[in-house]
Amino acid sequence: MTADKTKIVINEVGFRDGLQSIERIMSTDDKKRWIDASYHAGVRHMEVASFVPPRLLPQMADAAEVVAHALQLPGLQVTGLVPNLRGAENALQAGVQRIVAPVSVSPAHSLANVRKTPEQMVEEMARIRELRDDSGSSAVLLAGMSVAFGCTRQGTVPLSDLCALVRLVIEAGVDEVSLGDTTGQATPRQVGETLDAVREVAGDRLRSAHFHDTRGLALVNSLVAVQHGVRELDASLGGLGGCPFAPGASGNTVTEDLAFMLESMGYETGIDLRKLLDARQVMQAGLPGEPVYGYIARAGLPLGYQGAWVRS
Amino acid sequence: MTADKTKIVINEVGFRDGLQSIERIMSTDDKKRWIDASYHAGVRHMEVASFVPPRLLPQMADAAEVVAHALQLPGLQVTGLVPNLRGAENALQAGVQRIVAPVSVSPAHSLANVRKTPEQMVEEMARIRELRDDSGSSAVLLAGMSVAFGCTRQGTVPLSDLCALVRLVIEAGVDEVSLGDTTGQATPRQVGETLDAVREVAGDRLRSAHFHDTRGLALVNSLVAVQHGVRELDASLGGLGGCPFAPGASGNTVTEDLAFMLESMGYETGIDLRKLLDARQVMQAGLPGEPVYGYIARAGLPLGYQGAWVRS
Repeated sequence: MTADKTKIVINEVGFRDGLQSIERIMSTDDKKRWIDASYHAGVRHMEVASFVPPRLLPQMADAAEVVAHALQLPGLQVTGLVPNLRGAENALQAGVQRIVAPVSVSPAHSLANVRKTPEQMVEEMARIRELRDDSGSSAVLLAGMSVAFGCTRQGTVPLSDLCALVRLVIEAGVDEVSLGDTTGQATPRQVGETLDAVREVAGDRLRSAHFHDTRGLALVNSLVAVQHGVRELDASLGGLGGCPFAPGASGNTVTEDLAFMLESMGYETGIDLRKLLDARQVMQAGLPGEPVYGYIARAGLPLGYQGAWVRS
Repeated sequence: MTADKTKIVINEVGFRDGLQSIERIMSTDDKKRWIDASYHAGVRHMEVASFVPPRLLPQMADAAEVVAHALQLPGLQVTGLVPNLRGAENALQAGVQRIVAPVSVSPAHSLANVRKTPEQMVEEMARIRELRDDSGSSAVLLAGMSVAFGCTRQGTVPLSDLCALVRLVIEAGVDEVSLGDTTGQATPRQVGETLDAVREVAGDRLRSAHFHDTRGLALVNSLVAVQHGVRELDASLGGLGGCPFAPGASGNTVTEDLAFMLESMGYETGIDLRKLLDARQVMQAGLPGEPVYGYIARAGLPLGYQGAWVRS
């Protein structure tokens, strides 16, 4: 493997996907402390906020302030989620370096999530692209393809539908595409074949993958994604954002477990696992009593752990 | 893939590895009900008991009766674990179709587990082989290589030590070899490279792999084992046999989650997932209040689930 192929970006999305999925509201200061602790552990890609109306998601009311704080950390790529043009205006104004907008492959999910059909969301992406260009911002525009592997409303999501929609968002001008297993339904062979098929449409614009641990396959699917060329994966510290053991709810891939797996395989994530476990405690201190998940934090690192496994 | 390559054996070890790891003793009748329910769900390989002195493992005192019951089920392969020659005598007398004996790669673990050094255990394997041959039994003799991927006492286990010991047990006359991640330390690249290296020594005698979910990697490691040619995997219904969230303890790969993963990929396990979830309830009825684990049982099968993912 070349040096580049051994590097994998872990994008911490707990600040957004985690915090927006729980009822409790983390204070702005606690968010900043968590961001700092993750940064200290080597995390260099974070989705720190969602630019939505505070009446819909009060957890994200301080998005601009959180982004401003994150932007002070050298070398950190700061992503903000936006559901529409209005959100994109606010995100660009806040100075995010990457905008991610969700594009649902399932019409039922799309209408429920952003009150637009997939086609209407593609048009919105074109407007966001225009806005970005007119603003002079160099922010990257990422289309987060939601329910790409299945939908709790629609059931199966045809791969042909996904590929057709990816083609449209690229024509609409997005820079990058991410595949999201929003509902935790993806299975390993599906992940591999789906990534291969989408790459035929998106080429190098296919950037990252986002899994939930609903059926215990988040790490498996992450591994398969890596085997199929993906070099950026979303994850959430402590799997924050939903109990994997409750029907209908499910946390993201657990950041520290993903980092352990990838580092053990010799991939470079830039993350110091022990410091990441410290960051988990910082996060928990800001959400006392909130359930968190993950194996490494409980089992500890193996005796004699020194990072990548080395044949001996 | 040829038909053979798509078939994967899931060997249910909950009756042995699960039940011997918990304090409670399941009644013989409840064990029989659990065996029947698993059989009804399509499970055709079970490790149903350990032939050890009842004073050491009272949970296994009914080993012979449990084996006798399992042997009545047509087409079921019945495995019994034995720690030594005496256990093998009892297992053969009970009529098991396969004997598995643990051979620890780590001297510290070996002495603690079977009070023999690895070399002494190899000699015991030769005696067991001789006993098997003299008895006229056609039982298969499987060496379960314990702590093959790391040891909580010793730390790292050199792959060269494992390969040397595998060579010795094969010379001692075992028919099959299994690699066991007894302490839940295996990581994916390690699993792949280790299987490849052991296959060079063991050839087709390399039969199966046994993982624990201590660090959340049981399914990942199972997938990697399949990718590296393994077609038999151990698992325990409900992950019975240890809390994956407690330091030092850890359950086996969860049978129902493993079956879901493999079936979703188009592998044939012969298992009906819905009936297997029924079997889980039968098992739980025999162990009221005992913690069980796993994702599928809690999240349910995905909407529209029909088995293998099919591209559409």
